[in-house]
Order: sequence, then C-alpha cells, then structure tokens
Amino acid sequence: MTQARRPRRLRGGIDLGGTKIEAIVVDAGNSVLGSARRPTPTSGGPPDVAAAMVEAMRSAASAARIEPSGLVGVGVGSPGSIDAATGAVASARNLPGWTGSYPLAEVLTSGLGTRVVVDNDVSVGTEAEFRLGAGQPYTSVLGVFWGTGVGGGLILDSQQWHGRGGAGEIGHMVIKLGGRRCPCGRRGCMEAYAGRAAMEARARKLAKRGTSTKLFKLMEKEGHTRLTSSVWAKAVEAGDRLAVELIDEAVAALGAGIASAVNLLDVEAVIIGGGLGVRFGEPYIKRITDAMQPHLFNDGRPPDIHPVALGDLGGAIGAALLV
Amino acid sequence: MTQARRPRRLRGGIDLGGTKIEAIVVDAGNSVLGSARRPTPTSGGPPDVAAAMVEAMRSAASAARIEPSGLVGVGVGSPGSIDAATGAVASARNLPGWTGSYPLAEVLTSGLGTRVVVDNDVSVGTEAEFRLGAGQPYTSVLGVFWGTGVGGGLILDSQQWHGRGGAGEIGHMVIKLGGRRCPCGRRGCMEAYAGRAAMEARARKLAKRGTSTKLFKLMEKEGHTRLTSSVWAKAVEAGDRLAVELIDEAVAALGAGIASAVNLLDVEAVIIGGGLGVRFGEPYIKRITDAMQPHLFNDGRPPDIHPVALGDLGGAIGAALLV
Repeated sequence: MTQARRPRRLRGGIDLGGTKIEAIVVDAGNSVLGSARRPTPTSGGPPDVAAAMVEAMRSAASAARIEPSGLVGVGVGSPGSIDAATGAVASARNLPGWTGSYPLAEVLTSGLGTRVVVDNDVSVGTEAEFRLGAGQPYTSVLGVFWGTGVGGGLILDSQQWHGRGGAGEIGHMVIKLGGRRCPCGRRGCMEAYAGRAAMEARARKLAKRGTSTKLFKLMEKEGHTRLTSSVWAKAVEAGDRLAVELIDEAVAALGAGIASAVNLLDVEAVIIGGGLGVRFGEPYIKRITDAMQPHLFNDGRPPDIHPVALGDLGGAIGAALLV
Repeated sequence: MTQARRPRRLRGGIDLGGTKIEAIVVDAGNSVLGSARRPTPTSGGPPDVAAAMVEAMRSAASAARIEPSGLVGVGVGSPGSIDAATGAVASARNLPGWTGSYPLAEVLTSGLGTRVVVDNDVSVGTEAEFRLGAGQPYTSVLGVFWGTGVGGGLILDSQQWHGRGGAGEIGHMVIKLGGRRCPCGRRGCMEAYAGRAAMEARARKLAKRGTSTKLFKLMEKEGHTRLTSSVWAKAVEAGDRLAVELIDEAVAALGAGIASAVNLLDVEAVIIGGGLGVRFGEPYIKRITDAMQPHLFNDGRPPDIHPVALGDLGGAIGAALLV
C-alpha cells in the first residue's frame, strides 16, 4: 500500500530553558518558518511548565500556518535527567518544583497531537552547532552553555558522548576547592561563580548586605523578576561595579573550567552559547579565551573557540533535529 | 622464501618514570619472564636516561635468558610529548634536562638491536589495565597515575582517547583558582597538591622554614635523594604531621579533580595507579573515593573505583603491548 505523503514535512522544536521557552517550526532544510517564546513559569510545577510549552508550540505553529498535529513531530531539549525511552524528565533543578519524575513527552503529545521526543537541552544544542553551526569543521567539540546554569555538551569522534547518560556536567567541575556554594548544594563548582542563578543569588545577598548596585532597578525597569542576561549586560554596560565584579568572576571561572576540560580531552574546538554567552557575544568569547590561556597545559596549541552560530535559536533547532 | 621462525616470540617493555625505569620481558601470553629496575638519572640529560633504559632492558633480557636483539621488539611508555611516527620524545618535564626533542626510539634501537616503539606512559598504563587488568569489565575508563606527576589515561567506547594528541592532562585540571604553584608553572592544578614532585618541593620549603618533619631523615636512611613513595608511606605510618598534612591535601585534590573528570565524562570506572597509588593501595583508594563523593554531580551513581590490578609492572606490561 502506498502511504499518502504529507504536503509539507515540518517539524517542531522546543528549547526548555531556566528562563524562557523557545518554540520553533522548521522545514526539511532546517529553516525556521515560525517561532514563539514564553517565559518559563517561576512557580507552580511541571504541569505549569508543560502548559507553557504547549502554548509556545501552538503559537510557533500558528506563525508557520500549520496545526501542531500536522507536524511530523516535536523535539524537546530539556534540562534534568531524561529517560530517553519514555521522555520522562526528572530533577530539572532550574525549573520550578521539578524534583521528581514527570512524563513530559506524554503530556506534550496529548497537548499537541503529535509525536514528541525529549533529549537533554545541552546535547541538543551541541548537536545543532555540530551539524548546522560553528562546529561543522570539527570532529571533536565541547559545547558550553552559559546561562541559568553552565552545561556542557561533548562531541568526540563526530559522535555525542553521554557516558553512562550523565556526561557533560562541566558546570560542576570543581574550580575552587572549598569555594563558593553552588545552587546544586556543593562547593566550588564552576557554576557557583558562572551560572546566572548563582550570580543572582550572590548579587541579592550582597545587595541585602548594603552593596550598592543598579542590577535590581534595571530588572524592575525591564519588567522582570529575575536578573536576565539582558539585565546583566545593561548593568555591565552602565559600569555597575557589582555586576562587573560578578561577571569578571564568572569569566575567570569559565576560563579555568573550560581549560580543565580541554586539558583532559584536547578537543579541536569549544563553542560557547547559552543565554549569557549569546547576549555577551564575541567580546566575551575573547575574554573567556584569555581567561583559559594561563590554565591550558598545551598552551601553544589552544583549541579554536567560537560563539554559537545558531544564536538563541540553536537549542530549539537542535531539538527539531530529534524528529 | 620461508622465513625461519624464532623459537620464542618474546617482547620487551620499558616504563620510563620520573623516579625509576622498569624493564620487563614478556611472552606471547603477557607473562613476565624477566624484569629489572634502575633509578631514573636525576642529572645529565636524555642520553643518560636512554643509557639507563638500555641497561635496564639488557638486565631484564638477561633474566629471561635472551639477548635484547632476540626480542620481537621493545615498547616504551614515556612521559612528555611523543612523536608516534619517529618515537622522538619532547618536553618530558619530570626527566632531567629533557626540554627539547630527543630521538629516543632511534637511540634505543641502536642500543638494543631491535625495533623500538614509544608511546605515552599514561596511555600505555591505561591500555594495560583495560586489556589485562582492572579495566577489563568496562568500555569507558579513566586511568589516574598518581606519582611524580598526576597523569590521566582515557578509554572511551573501548578506544584510547587522545584528542589532538595531548588529552589526559588530568593533573593540570584547575582545582583551586589562584591556588598553589604547580611544577608546570601554572597555579592551582591538581598536580600542585597531589604530584610527588610538588609535594616534595612543598615539604622542602616548609622544612626550611622550620616545620619539623621526619621525611628527610627517612629519605636519607633509605639511601634516597628524593622523597620516594616508600618514604612518604613510612612517614605517614610514623604519624609525621607534615607528611600526613601533605598527603591529606593530595587526597582532597585527587578527589576534586577526579570527580570533576567524572562529572564531565561519566565513565564507568576509575582505575588508580602510579607510584603513590600503588604504594598506598586499597585504603587510599577508599580515601580518594570518599574525597570524590561530595563533588560528584550524579552522587547516587558513582563510577566503580579500583586500584590498578597489574601493580607497579602495569606500565611496562602496557609498553610491551605496543609491539
């Protein structure tokens, strides 16, 4: 029997971030036909997050003039621990109330009326850069996603490296034994200095103790309740001393942590993205490169360092590659 | 023309360490038929080291009742940067006067009258454990060689991972930003706290400043000019406060550095060897495991941790696998 062919083979992709949900619809050539963005709910629990994801996907589909149920499928890049077989997501630390396991793929499938595949957000973002972005010339790539947390994706010998399923936790490499408390509860992790959530917690603590800063006024002015990448960038541009100091610490931590990973793996290239990475862009890629240099063991032969080429949409494009 | 078959297919292996040179002769089943050990020259340069290696190999061959020229070949595990094609070795930091490149394979070939293959000491040691030792049950293994320096070997997906040729520098992962000066010249490397050379430099500095310690008396009593693994072990057994303190720091540094590597790679197993690793053995493997635990991101599912199964001879056995 001949199967009727759909008129258009469109796929959906959702990047579930700690701050925002980005949904897109792409065609067979991975061109983006429609996109939509929603803030990630800051309260409630997994069902609220799933509802916001359905809404974002519906809106992106509408922009691409297709019903979600008409999509070949929807890929999702999610934080937390993913059960690849069922699409259930557990312990997504930077999402509200997401401590246990939640059947994300199942709930989205019923909300969107099409097949949903879930994978790790960082793997998905790294795969997108490797196949379609800044990683194309290489066979070994470390993707570093500098945002709410700091995630790492690994391509080794042109393949994703997942270890036993939990590889890539570059944000929790120890860069300062006995150092600052990380949102994960441990001490001295790279993310304790470089993750946006940790930086915000630090800024709030210091502001409460009397350190003067424009960060929270800028936040209110922009209508946010959290220090977004844009708020950090504006505060740094305004020369806010606390913002500059915390960003400097973040750059130093990223330099040490990424150099450590390079000393261990000697990859050809490092690609830096994430909310802060994309917002701060090229000048900060240069600063991170400089911060890595004193820690590189093979310092005469550093890896190539690039910003993500797919920008903010890389995570969602990578997610769409899942289907 | 039919080639006459040698009566015995014996191979040589030499492990070139910062403290000692270990040479062995093995049969086709990798059983050790003869072995010899020489201290690594502490002065002079590469030719002196090569001469000591020839001497050690001659002595091991003699114990196995064979002429070196009768061996199928000799494999060498060497520190430094290896040119796989020529067997030249450059910048072997823990060896005397070995800053430039030296044609080690060529010199040994002419000294021993048989083919010589040189590879990285740590890769060779890890390969030996993976194929014949504690790594046999696994497909992903991190080998940690805790000795004069701290080296790391990687088996990923049952294959050696070398990156661009310089992977495995776990000793130079940053565990303390702005921390202690490492023999490599950088700051805060794991090796700055855990490498025997760094520990000895620290002990000499503190002793000079008046810290009381039995370390150097024990060293003289044992007829050494350096703090060997055995001297460290004896000082710790005797409750020497400085030795205990420095070994405690080394264990903490190893815990943080190895956990960082596991967070990044999520390997199935970590295998710990090297002069100090072998000398301190099981109780310290347990201590290092405990020191890793607070830094493991997936702390409910740590990798298996084993001491090397081939002991002190693992490096030489691995070297013999090269031919």
